[in-house]
Amino acid sequence: MRTLDELIKPAVRRLRAYTLTPRPAPIKLNQNENPFGVPSAIVAETLRRTAGRDWARYPDFVPTDLQATLARFAGWRPEGVVIGNGSNEIIQALLTMLVAPGAAIVLSEPTFTVYRLMVEALGGTVVNVPPRPDFSYDLPAMLDAARRAQAVAVILCSPNNPTGVTASEAELCALLKAFDGFVVVDEAYREFCDQNCVPLLADFPRLIVLRTFSKAMAMAGLRIGYGLVAPEVAAELNKVKLPYNVNFFSLTAAQVAIEMYDAELRPLVERIIRERERVAAAMADADWLTLLPSRANFHLLHTPRIAPGRLCEALLARGILVRDISHYPMLSEYIRFNIGAPEENDALLAFFKDARPGDFT
Amino acid sequence: MRTLDELIKPAVRRLRAYTLTPRPAPIKLNQNENPFGVPSAIVAETLRRTAGRDWARYPDFVPTDLQATLARFAGWRPEGVVIGNGSNEIIQALLTMLVAPGAAIVLSEPTFTVYRLMVEALGGTVVNVPPRPDFSYDLPAMLDAARRAQAVAVILCSPNNPTGVTASEAELCALLKAFDGFVVVDEAYREFCDQNCVPLLADFPRLIVLRTFSKAMAMAGLRIGYGLVAPEVAAELNKVKLPYNVNFFSLTAAQVAIEMYDAELRPLVERIIRERERVAAAMADADWLTLLPSRANFHLLHTPRIAPGRLCEALLARGILVRDISHYPMLSEYIRFNIGAPEENDALLAFFKDARPGDFT
Repeated sequence: MRTLDELIKPAVRRLRAYTLTPRPAPIKLNQNENPFGVPSAIVAETLRRTAGRDWARYPDFVPTDLQATLARFAGWRPEGVVIGNGSNEIIQALLTMLVAPGAAIVLSEPTFTVYRLMVEALGGTVVNVPPRPDFSYDLPAMLDAARRAQAVAVILCSPNNPTGVTASEAELCALLKAFDGFVVVDEAYREFCDQNCVPLLADFPRLIVLRTFSKAMAMAGLRIGYGLVAPEVAAELNKVKLPYNVNFFSLTAAQVAIEMYDAELRPLVERIIRERERVAAAMADADWLTLLPSRANFHLLHTPRIAPGRLCEALLARGILVRDISHYPMLSEYIRFNIGAPEENDALLAFFKDARPGDFT
Repeated sequence: MRTLDELIKPAVRRLRAYTLTPRPAPIKLNQNENPFGVPSAIVAETLRRTAGRDWARYPDFVPTDLQATLARFAGWRPEGVVIGNGSNEIIQALLTMLVAPGAAIVLSEPTFTVYRLMVEALGGTVVNVPPRPDFSYDLPAMLDAARRAQAVAVILCSPNNPTGVTASEAELCALLKAFDGFVVVDEAYREFCDQNCVPLLADFPRLIVLRTFSKAMAMAGLRIGYGLVAPEVAAELNKVKLPYNVNFFSLTAAQVAIEMYDAELRPLVERIIRERERVAAAMADADWLTLLPSRANFHLLHTPRIAPGRLCEALLARGILVRDISHYPMLSEYIRFNIGAPEENDALLAFFKDARPGDFT
């Protein structure tokens, strides 16, 4: 008689679950969400378009309208747009397509933890190439490692969660030219630095660009993401992703968000960028902690004199929830917080203005 | 230089994509949807509860409220409820947890095609045990095959899509007792025959019961399904399913649907069952085609004298869209149509009353 443990893949039994314990707090800066919320014009128009839609009917098998809209928005071909239940689902489909047991995937940790989790669940092997001491991607070293391991893909988050760095375009092009596997660039935070890898797609069919509606687009609650890929790659991805993977409500909301991006969302993105720079400037003088330069909607804070867990608890006691990321590789002395609305950032700055390392002992 | 084809897993390259070409028609009987639509009271209450919810915030990491509601509704433990983006996502997580390359999964085709697709995408092997000539599951033969192949799981859809048959409870218990792998019972259509495998969960931790909101619950457009499993299995499933896999809108709608099930949805289910029996009775006299007994919300129609594709086209010409399933194993002479609203069923019955095999030559 086989036990339950014997039936479940060892790779899965070994995994540590990705978890996040909910900690209610008035100021929530722990998930890199858009602090201004979704604009009410987008809500109203989504409700208007979905009113009368019969919930009992499946969504379209292929959401061609949204594909076409995203293609125009991103400057790519509609047949190369794959829409997912969050960009996580595109990553999952991509890895299902590529990862046979033992297949190597190159990452540069610290980065978004879901990549490793999915690679390992599928029986693949992560080859981790740490970034340089300033957290910049060491793309030449990643290329080297990818070649040696005959990796099927290199995955980069750019701007990277949680470090806020971007990959240099020149180095990325060099990688795309020299590496014969897939190169995945997760652009979840691209709007906060105007990064855009899409123009490279025409020359590099092994490039996969991932986008999400969870950050700048203010729709984390609706779970929509997409991949921009070569049409021949889309055809294979579509085989492994679930049919009817995005509900009609989220599909409509995404369509409306793109149509109203310039009028409603871009101004919020610009405010977040201004607030990011304001927070950075205000914290530049602190002698007991350092903010790293960020191109995303969050900051990485180096806190060498106070245990990050303790700092997080002290912030929470003041109603401010941030992310303790001290269990990430290289980040045992760091916390991450996203940019909030101005008054939320003021509260955070007030905390740091008053606080002294001695307060935490 | 590796080609794209060399990078993609052979198992995926070999797959034929699951597709459904949209054919607009006034009477849509091809996807086993609830023809009465979602009750307006459920829509109104869902909109009321979601009004003011900030879309920019992620859903709860664990949807504990809905888990508790589904546990009470189904008579199981909340820690054993796993909620997915449609029950498809639970199947996917389950197979990701179980299927290492070469792992065997026992199916009985014809059945829901997504099982085979996912098993093969993950590099597993399908062992197909055909049903008996009347399409009833041959569970003793499936047990035999599962043992010989050391299968990790047997997957049964009951009532089965597209044949409408249920597994006998006695035979299912015998399988659960004798087989040391997982037994998955997909109860997508359970409400149409009051089937309920949940009482078996307490004795058989290898049983996986799948449920969906896409059929009786009239919410195919919102993509919600769930699995009822042993808590120790849920812990492993939760490692491989995507974080934040269901959007807040669908989570709320599911909660409301359960709360209003008895008042709003059960009467619709009862009408569908009555219509199913009325359609069966009305077609019993036809001499050139046969309806199979069905315990679901659709009928399987045997049409030995007319090519199914031709019959489907003739129905479509009268505005009635049904499902050509003649490419399924054993079903080269069959079509499937779901039960519609009374006037839709009348239109279908009128077509068959008038039609004679000679009309199609």
